[in-house]
Amino acid sequence: MKILITGGAGFLGQRLASQLLAGNTLNGKTITEVVLLDVARPTNERLLGDARVRAVTGDISDRAVLERYIDKDTEAVFHLAAIVSGQAEADFDLGMRINLDASRALLEVCRAAGHAPRVVFTSSVAVYGGALPDVVRDDTALNPQSSYGAQKAIAELLLCDYARRGFVDGRVLRLPTISVRPGKPNAAASSFASGIIREPLNGERSVCPVDGATRLWLLSPKSAVKALIAGCEIDRAKFGNRPVINLPGLSVSVNEMIAALREVAGDEAVARIDWQRDERVEKIVGSWPGQWDVARAHALGLAGDENFADVIRAYLADEGLSA
Amino acid sequence: MKILITGGAGFLGQRLASQLLAGNTLNGKTITEVVLLDVARPTNERLLGDARVRAVTGDISDRAVLERYIDKDTEAVFHLAAIVSGQAEADFDLGMRINLDASRALLEVCRAAGHAPRVVFTSSVAVYGGALPDVVRDDTALNPQSSYGAQKAIAELLLCDYARRGFVDGRVLRLPTISVRPGKPNAAASSFASGIIREPLNGERSVCPVDGATRLWLLSPKSAVKALIAGCEIDRAKFGNRPVINLPGLSVSVNEMIAALREVAGDEAVARIDWQRDERVEKIVGSWPGQWDVARAHALGLAGDENFADVIRAYLADEGLSA
Repeated sequence: MKILITGGAGFLGQRLASQLLAGNTLNGKTITEVVLLDVARPTNERLLGDARVRAVTGDISDRAVLERYIDKDTEAVFHLAAIVSGQAEADFDLGMRINLDASRALLEVCRAAGHAPRVVFTSSVAVYGGALPDVVRDDTALNPQSSYGAQKAIAELLLCDYARRGFVDGRVLRLPTISVRPGKPNAAASSFASGIIREPLNGERSVCPVDGATRLWLLSPKSAVKALIAGCEIDRAKFGNRPVINLPGLSVSVNEMIAALREVAGDEAVARIDWQRDERVEKIVGSWPGQWDVARAHALGLAGDENFADVIRAYLADEGLSA
Repeated sequence: MKILITGGAGFLGQRLASQLLAGNTLNGKTITEVVLLDVARPTNERLLGDARVRAVTGDISDRAVLERYIDKDTEAVFHLAAIVSGQAEADFDLGMRINLDASRALLEVCRAAGHAPRVVFTSSVAVYGGALPDVVRDDTALNPQSSYGAQKAIAELLLCDYARRGFVDGRVLRLPTISVRPGKPNAAASSFASGIIREPLNGERSVCPVDGATRLWLLSPKSAVKALIAGCEIDRAKFGNRPVINLPGLSVSVNEMIAALREVAGDEAVARIDWQRDERVEKIVGSWPGQWDVARAHALGLAGDENFADVIRAYLADEGLSA
């Protein structure tokens, strides 16, 4: 079987590809090719050295590009490519083109292929907004308050209808905030959720822009990749009429994250955090749901992380670092 | 001010135009032109005789057509045109083109005009589906189980984001089942909701395909037009972050509708109803929400009908019939 990963050169896309190839099978079939489609080349040389990997560049909103890499042998598509929230808010048309038009083009090309391939869309908690109930469930009403959230919500609805009609075997997995992300800080409001752990572990200072009591909903890269693969392997009949799942996260306060950092790396690491509140970040992060009911995800066999100290230890192991 | 009505040759579009012209103003400004854009010509000769009416035909999914009729003087757009549920299910691509692409093109042309005109989208209870709470509210989660419902839900999300960004001054009004519709039965599952009243009043037999205890959520044409105009005149600040309103309907059982028919037109009319259950219709109608919380619509000054006997009397008066 062939697999296509859009956004395949991204951090999560490359990890997903590595994990799929290490497993060798998906849905019980041997993986013969993983196409990594992105605007840039992947950086993982070991991944690029695998004979089953085909790294290609192209604009995913161009239907002809998608047609080149989706055919009868493509049995699964992981659609990870997206314009992130800050950029989609700054450049509305770009967000519409990549987050909406490309998603639709991808569904159309899969439909035209005629064999209803599995399609996994990653979505985001940004589809929620406004006044939220105390506990958010898969079927809590969407009310996006950003163009990114609106585009993701629309893509979800498209996928659900294409799936209902049998054009694709689709499912939507909404990701919690991924932490600990390797690499550099970015412009996302949630960037600190990795930064306040990653930078101190690397001996660098990091700013925490929110109150220590702020609760976050986190998923480690390793668990995210596991959930993407498990989500792809779920039999569609188990979704009922709503193939959309909030992936289970770990609900932790910033103070609890820092306690875990102390447990793993000591007071010295914790001392590298500077507390400097940023109203803009506090407002965005404060609007995110506090509690989640993920009973349905658990019943479908999807799991998150057990405790944040282990997440930190896994980050260290992945990066070849010691505490 | 100029007003554009898409679907302007339809039954509701023509009634809306007549009411607007009779009122002479919208949002406190004098109406100088009402453009009725549709694939067909309106049939109301009195309406066509009004010097302020411009009836034009064209494909609303063609941006150039919309650009011809939306300019700086267009201060309100009522977007009524749609491919109805049965047809959108039978012809997926046609539904996508009219219910989604045309809605987006309309928003884009309004955005390009630069003055954030008021845009009223009509939507439908078909955006709901699956397991529903006992009482449906404006913020009950959408879970469309038809392509029509999915396309309407997507158009709602688009409008909300265009409104949030200030590209348009938009609002979505979800219409209950309109009854009593004049004219002929159609292929809609809800067709009987007009037919079991209209045909007996016209001396014809009519089939009721559902159990008498079945509850419907109805709005008369007159109240629908009133609500569309009132909905257009609401100050956007009053919507908060969710400019989507379920219009207040009248919750009546089929038995109650027939009791009202008896009250207005006697046993003779009621005797023209044949009871012949149709599983397909029962399934669709049975999936619709039973109870609605419309406190928000009422607080915004939107009203439905008081009792169904008056709705029947208004139908008779409109059609120049006597009971």
